[in-house]
Amino acid sequence: MIQQETNHYLLEITQPEAEAILRRSHLVIIPTGSVEQHGPHLPCGTDHYAIMAIARKVSVGLDGLLLPFSHTGVTPFHATIAGTLTLRQETYINLLLDTAASVIRHGAQKILVINWHEGNTAAINYAASQLQQEYGVRCVIAQACYIAAQLYQDEAELTHAGALEALPVLAYRPELVKLERATNPSPYAAAKEMDTLRRSRSVYPLLADIRQIAPTGWYGDLSIVNDKKAQELVERVSAEIVQAVQRVFARLEKNI
Amino acid sequence: MIQQETNHYLLEITQPEAEAILRRSHLVIIPTGSVEQHGPHLPCGTDHYAIMAIARKVSVGLDGLLLPFSHTGVTPFHATIAGTLTLRQETYINLLLDTAASVIRHGAQKILVINWHEGNTAAINYAASQLQQEYGVRCVIAQACYIAAQLYQDEAELTHAGALEALPVLAYRPELVKLERATNPSPYAAAKEMDTLRRSRSVYPLLADIRQIAPTGWYGDLSIVNDKKAQELVERVSAEIVQAVQRVFARLEKNI
Amino acid sequence: MIQQETNHYLLEITQPEAEAILRRSHLVIIPTGSVEQHGPHLPCGTDHYAIMAIARKVSVGLDGLLLPFSHTGVTPFHATIAGTLTLRQETYINLLLDTAASVIRHGAQKILVINWHEGNTAAINYAASQLQQEYGVRCVIAQACYIAAQLYQDEAELTHAGALEALPVLAYRPELVKLERATNPSPYAAAKEMDTLRRSRSVYPLLADIRQIAPTGWYGDLSIVNDKKAQELVERVSAEIVQAVQRVFARLEKNI
Amino acid sequence: MIQQETNHYLLEITQPEAEAILRRSHLVIIPTGSVEQHGPHLPCGTDHYAIMAIARKVSVGLDGLLLPFSHTGVTPFHATIAGTLTLRQETYINLLLDTAASVIRHGAQKILVINWHEGNTAAINYAASQLQQEYGVRCVIAQACYIAAQLYQDEAELTHAGALEALPVLAYRPELVKLERATNPSPYAAAKEMDTLRRSRSVYPLLADIRQIAPTGWYGDLSIVNDKKAQELVERVSAEIVQAVQRVFARLEKNI
Amino acid sequence: MIQQETNHYLLEITQPEAEAILRRSHLVIIPTGSVEQHGPHLPCGTDHYAIMAIARKVSVGLDGLLLPFSHTGVTPFHATIAGTLTLRQETYINLLLDTAASVIRHGAQKILVINWHEGNTAAINYAASQLQQEYGVRCVIAQACYIAAQLYQDEAELTHAGALEALPVLAYRPELVKLERATNPSPYAAAKEMDTLRRSRSVYPLLADIRQIAPTGWYGDLSIVNDKKAQELVERVSAEIVQAVQRVFARLEKNI
Amino acid sequence: MIQQETNHYLLEITQPEAEAILRRSHLVIIPTGSVEQHGPHLPCGTDHYAIMAIARKVSVGLDGLLLPFSHTGVTPFHATIAGTLTLRQETYINLLLDTAASVIRHGAQKILVINWHEGNTAAINYAASQLQQEYGVRCVIAQACYIAAQLYQDEAELTHAGALEALPVLAYRPELVKLERATNPSPYAAAKEMDTLRRSRSVYPLLADIRQIAPTGWYGDLSIVNDKKAQELVERVSAEIVQAVQRVFARLEKNI
Repeated sequence: MIQQETNHYLLEITQPEAEAILRRSHLVIIPTGSVEQHGPHLPCGTDHYAIMAIARKVSVGLDGLLLPFSHTGVTPFHATIAGTLTLRQETYINLLLDTAASVIRHGAQKILVINWHEGNTAAINYAASQLQQEYGVRCVIAQACYIAAQLYQDEAELTHAGALEALPVLAYRPELVKLERATNPSPYAAAKEMDTLRRSRSVYPLLADIRQIAPTGWYGDLSIVNDKKAQELVERVSAEIVQAVQRVFARLEKNI
Repeated sequence: MIQQETNHYLLEITQPEAEAILRRSHLVIIPTGSVEQHGPHLPCGTDHYAIMAIARKVSVGLDGLLLPFSHTGVTPFHATIAGTLTLRQETYINLLLDTAASVIRHGAQKILVINWHEGNTAAINYAASQLQQEYGVRCVIAQACYIAAQLYQDEAELTHAGALEALPVLAYRPELVKLERATNPSPYAAAKEMDTLRRSRSVYPLLADIRQIAPTGWYGDLSIVNDKKAQELVERVSAEIVQAVQRVFARLEKNI
Repeated sequence: MIQQETNHYLLEITQPEAEAILRRSHLVIIPTGSVEQHGPHLPCGTDHYAIMAIARKVSVGLDGLLLPFSHTGVTPFHATIAGTLTLRQETYINLLLDTAASVIRHGAQKILVINWHEGNTAAINYAASQLQQEYGVRCVIAQACYIAAQLYQDEAELTHAGALEALPVLAYRPELVKLERATNPSPYAAAKEMDTLRRSRSVYPLLADIRQIAPTGWYGDLSIVNDKKAQELVERVSAEIVQAVQRVFARLEKNI
Repeated sequence: MIQQETNHYLLEITQPEAEAILRRSHLVIIPTGSVEQHGPHLPCGTDHYAIMAIARKVSVGLDGLLLPFSHTGVTPFHATIAGTLTLRQETYINLLLDTAASVIRHGAQKILVINWHEGNTAAINYAASQLQQEYGVRCVIAQACYIAAQLYQDEAELTHAGALEALPVLAYRPELVKLERATNPSPYAAAKEMDTLRRSRSVYPLLADIRQIAPTGWYGDLSIVNDKKAQELVERVSAEIVQAVQRVFARLEKNI
Repeated sequence: MIQQETNHYLLEITQPEAEAILRRSHLVIIPTGSVEQHGPHLPCGTDHYAIMAIARKVSVGLDGLLLPFSHTGVTPFHATIAGTLTLRQETYINLLLDTAASVIRHGAQKILVINWHEGNTAAINYAASQLQQEYGVRCVIAQACYIAAQLYQDEAELTHAGALEALPVLAYRPELVKLERATNPSPYAAAKEMDTLRRSRSVYPLLADIRQIAPTGWYGDLSIVNDKKAQELVERVSAEIVQAVQRVFARLEKNI
Repeated sequence: MIQQETNHYLLEITQPEAEAILRRSHLVIIPTGSVEQHGPHLPCGTDHYAIMAIARKVSVGLDGLLLPFSHTGVTPFHATIAGTLTLRQETYINLLLDTAASVIRHGAQKILVINWHEGNTAAINYAASQLQQEYGVRCVIAQACYIAAQLYQDEAELTHAGALEALPVLAYRPELVKLERATNPSPYAAAKEMDTLRRSRSVYPLLADIRQIAPTGWYGDLSIVNDKKAQELVERVSAEIVQAVQRVFARLEKNI
């Protein structure tokens, strides 16, 4: 019975269980990542596993129905390298709109999109804005990778296929992580400089290919990666999201 | 090492492994099902699990790269019932086109779509036809649920949430099957009559809602379901697909 | 007066006559074929004439308003050969949606699409499904060419520009049939093998060009073609459709 | 043989005949009208028959391949009245683009769109402009109804379901014209005033419904209608178009 | 205060002023031109300035809210020459639809599109027709350049970058007109012939490039251009439009 | 001559001048703002004027061709209040794509989008990403309003219709600023709290209506606003953008 209570993932539960969650909380949670090359040491589904590790905990914490969503996201930035799948932004947007429309029909009123891939952000914001206008639902976005970066800013930087990406996969699907193969990181300083440039809020370039940042496809330090920190990161990020989302929804309700 | 050889699922393998498969076989396999209510006894991801059970074996048998694809398919037919997600056909088509375009860029020349959900068929055919015209790749479709129905025609009929759907889930994720809760099947004869009507090739209605067939959302007999038959079904259907696909590709090559 | 009663074709009748039919039966019939090369012996409008021959009789039999619809269908499969016109599937779908929307506004509640061209099927199913969801109308599809193939299975196979296609044109526009020019059929056995392959329900390729089946653009036997059988085929197929459609609509109504 | 030479209508001729015309002239002719209520005395296909009567002659005169095109056009203006079908402008445009693309693939270099329905004009111009940009073909538009109005300006005005519309139908499908039923024309002066207003080139309203012009759906005088003038109108308009089109193409070629 | 009363341009006025105009008249005015090369003597914004000069006066005369609208229009015809911007027709249409939808939400019931660029006409008519169907608003189009041509038919012809285009810019932004640089007009007779051909209502080509008319990009006589005539032209065209629009709206209201 | 050198605005210059700039620098600058209510004291074109004030200086500083772009942006957030115009995101994106495509055809290789309206950001990023993929041009985005906020962080916060918005309008079109009417700011603390919430990078809501932040439509302090600071702000922000953009383009070139 406890098992049942702690599973909120639509794919794994039956119709009556899904309906009960929706009736209780009117909240759905849409996890989104990416399928893309992550060097020789992490699986191509890294972003998917990272967000699923966190989203499962968040869905229990918020009592929301966790929806299965496309593993693949928007990542033209990695598209020249085999192992990467990418969607056009309009495809991704329509996918998000259709998924949300399906559950709005069954009573969902609050939608939390929980993301582990920067390339999805423009499309998520676009779709969420459409959903609010068309259906009057409330949309909140949680950028899990930024939260991780913030919580661990003293220990690690957010780099592609670096420690902050290895940790949640290690927590969720440890058998897929092959740290011993991580022998070809790109030079750190140059990579970091370009990465910072494109993440500026004020004046920023749109880069076309990850190799403009990292010629080998990834960069970063993995020395802090271990099982304990893996579990801890997933716990801390999930807890932070649960609290922040509750705060935001509470604030919005006060405002009506 | 053998372990490595038998995993062809892009989500779980690293970039160099994925690239190696594509370079060897130029074949990708796209598994597609649906997320929809399957009564009180089967998970809402039943069609997804059914196709994954089979597609994993097929990908090893054909040495093709197995792509992660949307769990959700096209199923307006189940959309009024909570627990169901559905995509517009154009969304599904664009998803298939984008996914295929990603790997064609990396050298894929043959695309096998392997399906366990009738509602996806029109969109799959549409997309596959576009892919052939635009990229000159070869597309083959395998309808796994029809193959199962054919192989087991003496034992079971293809009914929604009946034995032929329970078996592959039992093989793949046994902990998600709750046969003891299957207490409310819809009346069989009336359901079968409507189901046959809509599956006719000559004159057929387009039904709007599963409840026109089965008021409780499902029907069928589950008495033959057991673990051994579950494993056997997955083995037989996979083997049948591997052989048929090899035959079709061989025939097409002869024709050039 | 009898003349008036037996003409249900919107193109040929006046506004008050069209309105009267709609008010009586709320049924419209949409005939659809294709414009494509049919060898040196049949007109490029063969599929259009075949379906019009049958649809005129069906419209009288069911008292439905027969709508003029695009002669052209979806046939990328024949598109490399001059004499063929083809629409993108989305164009065809929108055409069907707009046509239906026009008459739904005037009271149509039942829509029968009657088809003589396999390439249209995915688009028809797609559009019909949209119409049911959006307007709540009832859609039934009649595949006239499959019905002909079934009724004449002891005498002829359904082959491109073969007897089953020559017959309805001969019945409807005899002056356009030039059997004496039919001197270059493609080899039968190889053509039949490929045709069967692509029509399989379980594992099937999507072929890109008719010449993968028939290098000369057509194949089949014409020896059974004569005027009497031509008339008979049109009568039998029409009668079969009228009965089957009545049965289906009756069954659907019982179900409400 | 003469018969063969005088039939340029793709629907009625065989593949080798169609190919021969295209190879000779590289010219296709696309006839377009509308399906809409035309009072109690003219068939709903009036605009289609009018343009076909003229286009057949033009196609022989210019040795162009006459394509079958949608009977239905863009006529929201008549859409509230049963007997009318209308397409969205984008559907019509895509139809024209797809039809032209089909034959451009087979060598068409010049496209003549020949029109008998004002409501189609914006969409025709739009599509023709796209075709020129995308394929480098030459597009010429002939507005047959304006040419008729100009040639007969001393005898009749261009009014909906009036003499200039009755005449070409009488020439082409005389059995469909029922002049004796034409008992309810709308008041002429008010109708003419509104019709002139909307046809102004400088300041003009977009009217939503034909009944803003003619409460009974049509207006005009039919007293000049007879068989001889019917034949004559079709001859004169066709001849005028043949000459004008030859002049335009000649002028365009001089300019290269 | 008079100043305030005479400014109806949304860009320049505050929210309460804009709202007051809408509440009074329910009329919005959408001015549209083009950004395109106009030879060495006129600014690339010529069509924009021409229509703004007139639209400002018209907005005061009709007490309508003058909306800022895209400077750029639809002009593939000039697109090969630097200095030209052009929109796809669908982009322009959506822009017009969105702009109108914004103000319809705030109470606009009448929409006047006032145009100085022939290339926009098909798209304007298309969009206006959609607006009427979807929202039930009244749309009137004023073709300012044709009105100028009509009023000044004894003095000047409407030619690209000729006197009728120089005059309104001279009235509105005199510092941008450099008549002394106008040293390379294209040969007049040939240009006029082609221009007349494409403007025919009966049989007309769609030209792809202005250089088919004027190899140097422009033609026409500028000898009549002076400051006084500039002011006069703007006054006369504006007054003519104000009167004609009032007449049309009055006539439409009578008709309800 | 100096005058000529300092005007880079396509709308105001002639064809030869525009072509010369493109040939020299291959750089275009696209300024984008919004048309929306800005309280009783600022014009509805505030965001447009703010960005034009800055973009004119930036275009001279970088020797880029300044393109006229839509005054209107994406602002559903203000759409319920009269005085606001808003585009759907796809309309805005297509507008940006078409505008850029026009000049890429004439040799533009670098595109700087310079923005004063947060609501446009998702659409700008989307379009810029498409442009890079499709044409291989380099896109850089400058968020002028964030730069202003950063430079003046000790003096003012970025609030809707507050000091940082009033200043650039005062610099560019002083006669349109009516500070004395600014009598109804919304309560500051609550507004700031909500504004901060939605601008968070980690967990943020998508707000539907400005009135969730500011019931009167605006908030902020105007006490620091004066002519001198107005000029200074435009100078400082422009200079900052010129330098940052040069740095980014230089860094990108090093990377090739």
